[in-house]
Amino acid sequence: MVDGVLLRGAADRELNNFAALDQADASCVSFYGNPKYREQLARTRAGLVLVPDGDHEAPHAAALVRVTNPVIAFDRIVRAYGTLPPPFEPGVSPAAFVHPEAVLDPALVSVGPNASVLRGAKVGKGTRIGVGAVIGEGAEIGADCVIAPNATICQGCVVGNRVILHPGVVIGADGFGFEFVDGRHRKIEQLGIVRIGDDVEIGASTTVDRARFGETVIGGGTKIDNQVQIGHNCLIGKHCIIVAQTGISGSTRIGDYVVLAAQCGVAGHLVIADRITFGGRSGVISSIEEPGGTYFGYPARTLKEDRRDAMRVKQLGSLLKRVKDIEARLGDGVD
Amino acid sequence: MVDGVLLRGAADRELNNFAALDQADASCVSFYGNPKYREQLARTRAGLVLVPDGDHEAPHAAALVRVTNPVIAFDRIVRAYGTLPPPFEPGVSPAAFVHPEAVLDPALVSVGPNASVLRGAKVGKGTRIGVGAVIGEGAEIGADCVIAPNATICQGCVVGNRVILHPGVVIGADGFGFEFVDGRHRKIEQLGIVRIGDDVEIGASTTVDRARFGETVIGGGTKIDNQVQIGHNCLIGKHCIIVAQTGISGSTRIGDYVVLAAQCGVAGHLVIADRITFGGRSGVISSIEEPGGTYFGYPARTLKEDRRDAMRVKQLGSLLKRVKDIEARLGDGVD
Amino acid sequence: MVDGVLLRGAADRELNNFAALDQADASCVSFYGNPKYREQLARTRAGLVLVPDGDHEAPHAAALVRVTNPVIAFDRIVRAYGTLPPPFEPGVSPAAFVHPEAVLDPALVSVGPNASVLRGAKVGKGTRIGVGAVIGEGAEIGADCVIAPNATICQGCVVGNRVILHPGVVIGADGFGFEFVDGRHRKIEQLGIVRIGDDVEIGASTTVDRARFGETVIGGGTKIDNQVQIGHNCLIGKHCIIVAQTGISGSTRIGDYVVLAAQCGVAGHLVIADRITFGGRSGVISSIEEPGGTYFGYPARTLKEDRRDAMRVKQLGSLLKRVKDIEARLGDGVD
Repeated sequence: MVDGVLLRGAADRELNNFAALDQADASCVSFYGNPKYREQLARTRAGLVLVPDGDHEAPHAAALVRVTNPVIAFDRIVRAYGTLPPPFEPGVSPAAFVHPEAVLDPALVSVGPNASVLRGAKVGKGTRIGVGAVIGEGAEIGADCVIAPNATICQGCVVGNRVILHPGVVIGADGFGFEFVDGRHRKIEQLGIVRIGDDVEIGASTTVDRARFGETVIGGGTKIDNQVQIGHNCLIGKHCIIVAQTGISGSTRIGDYVVLAAQCGVAGHLVIADRITFGGRSGVISSIEEPGGTYFGYPARTLKEDRRDAMRVKQLGSLLKRVKDIEARLGDGVD
Repeated sequence: MVDGVLLRGAADRELNNFAALDQADASCVSFYGNPKYREQLARTRAGLVLVPDGDHEAPHAAALVRVTNPVIAFDRIVRAYGTLPPPFEPGVSPAAFVHPEAVLDPALVSVGPNASVLRGAKVGKGTRIGVGAVIGEGAEIGADCVIAPNATICQGCVVGNRVILHPGVVIGADGFGFEFVDGRHRKIEQLGIVRIGDDVEIGASTTVDRARFGETVIGGGTKIDNQVQIGHNCLIGKHCIIVAQTGISGSTRIGDYVVLAAQCGVAGHLVIADRITFGGRSGVISSIEEPGGTYFGYPARTLKEDRRDAMRVKQLGSLLKRVKDIEARLGDGVD
Repeated sequence: MVDGVLLRGAADRELNNFAALDQADASCVSFYGNPKYREQLARTRAGLVLVPDGDHEAPHAAALVRVTNPVIAFDRIVRAYGTLPPPFEPGVSPAAFVHPEAVLDPALVSVGPNASVLRGAKVGKGTRIGVGAVIGEGAEIGADCVIAPNATICQGCVVGNRVILHPGVVIGADGFGFEFVDGRHRKIEQLGIVRIGDDVEIGASTTVDRARFGETVIGGGTKIDNQVQIGHNCLIGKHCIIVAQTGISGSTRIGDYVVLAAQCGVAGHLVIADRITFGGRSGVISSIEEPGGTYFGYPARTLKEDRRDAMRVKQLGSLLKRVKDIEARLGDGVD
């Protein structure tokens, strides 16, 4: 399959797993494609390692197979033997609920058992609605989407084409808005929607709130990880990356190609320019107009500023000592 | 509908969306109610802007309509044309599961497809149980509640009247309690419940754990945002606001009218007095007995202290320089 | 039931709840087992307090009952009258969906209404599949597990014996992996699985991503709280404790008996040795090879270092003053 040459070891071992060099045991196929992992190769206990042309030190590996490009060869084996997503099977499960006024072609969509497609919802061709997923009243799902099990899309929300929503995702719950009247928090009705562009992927248990009015927007091509929270009326640009457990407060506008690493927080009503990258756990409390650049810390600042502040705290110990020395030199008068 | 006067532009354009001035395009109705948005008005490209009496600079807006109160007029239009929640329709869906020993009046409650109401559960009149939602054994839900799709209320938990639980909410999963015996973590059974007061709203994917014994309590009128975690045996007061991704550890008692902004953390077994506000990302590691006041940072401190600490770190650079100057003045002897 | 002696108060009051001394009212049974709660005993308004032999000050409690061991006696009452989990009832609900090619013995497992067990999935004896839960294609669940309502286990994932997964848990959603090609993020297929060891417990709405290839592993006996995120290809050791809202990025390897308190973050591709404890909100950005020890802060450092840094910032105020004094003493020449 990979057109390789057995360099060492037996060709008939049974291998039933895949792993990186440092995690592989005798049951695993692994690969070595980059010299920076030479040390891992020397220690790996993999059952078989795909290696490029050349001499390789891998005394603990059970077998080595030489191939032209180990990365491509490994990928081919994983695709052949890995755990593939279940294939698309058109049809509506008899155990699903599809409202008579829902709009979908049962021959071209897949609706799993215990899934629900409610009144007026539309589902495009090639889209699969996973087991237990809910497509709310009047929601519109484009073509070739994967709505995973137990995902929830609330009434009126609009999802583009080739969108992947993972299990537990909630699209279009009410935004968090109240006014304080007579000692109580009175609900401000949330009457907008969420609009998700083409080619968006949203991770497990992520929540995107509907707009108070108008739309909360996730731009085309943006990829969002698990357990991210996006508040009402946010406008997220195109091709952004938003990593796990990040939260973005309401009405904030994020540009295109912005990267938010894990566990960031962005305050509400801000404007963040294109192509900015935020390091993990950044806390963003003011708008950034200048596109590009990398920010860290809380409040978020440039890498240079962040390092300088950290360095200064580190220097405090020696600074204290220097001041004590000066005081000693200045003599008894100081107390 | 809004009893307005067309000041400028065409009255017959088709408008199909709502947006704030700075987000509106030619398809949107917007409004201008507050002079602090004058600059946004001057730049807006909205299809139609509702404005109060007076002269207004809005060269890029396609039409202006004068009304008595733009906020109220806009609200009226949004309510008429926005995405309203689906209306209450009493009845139990044939695709729902309602245990024969559940207590509910099918003529007065709404149970959606693929929802489950288990043995001994009670559901009050006017309450809707959303698609795929689960009402556990013996749980009690009051009147006029909205339990959204795919929400889960576990056995024995009690929910008041007019409560809103958004999709993915989990009420009454086991608290996190173990004792370490013989090299293993042994589960401490969690045999209490969660009790939720009247008029509480809880956001998508928020989790509230059942008490070890007795009750975890969410006080009446408290509003909780998405992805909040509340540990076992917490007592949350009335009319609190708890913003997204905040976590409160077990057995902590929070007073009334407390506000926790986004991404806060509160340690376990603390007591927090009434009417305290915590800024975003506060980390609260000790009790606060004095009611009122605003706290920030980690560990949480008053705004004044927080600013002073930040200021001091900023001054470090100049301090270092001053010490260096002193050392230079004191001459060669220093090394 | 507890073989106690009524010391004071009436024996025939109706009590219908349990609570700790400081939270109990007249309807509650409470207990006093540890002298450090003497003050709480003196103030408690509990309806009945279980106390050990000796003299006790509890003027506001309605009744006192003396027992040999109050902790054990209280536990016995809670188990008798608390909210027990529903009993195991074997059988497949007629409202469940079980694929004809799923492998389970309907006489030995329990599958709730609206639950789904998909093609090729295996479920061991004594295991309960909760209402609305999803067991994906080819997934394997061991014996005596509790898969709670609305939990989702995706295709091919493997769960050991005596595992508890709480509501909203998502096991085996795709890992977050993309390569940036021609201005777009292209999905890297995630073709591995998640493997969960015996005796693991995972809290509500926690997400564990499938490996890119090979396995994401949760070691036996590890306990994970609510809203934790574990990235693809992580290897979590045995008997770890991972508290709420913690996130662990992809390919990180955590040793055995590691404790991560609430809201920690661990970067990707790290190796953390056995028996290390991280305080709440620690941010771990480099590997730790030395087993044992306690770390705090961001970036995570030892308790000693963390305290020293905090102390230094506190000393800054006085340091500033000392430098000012020195400058004054050195006279007019300084400016």
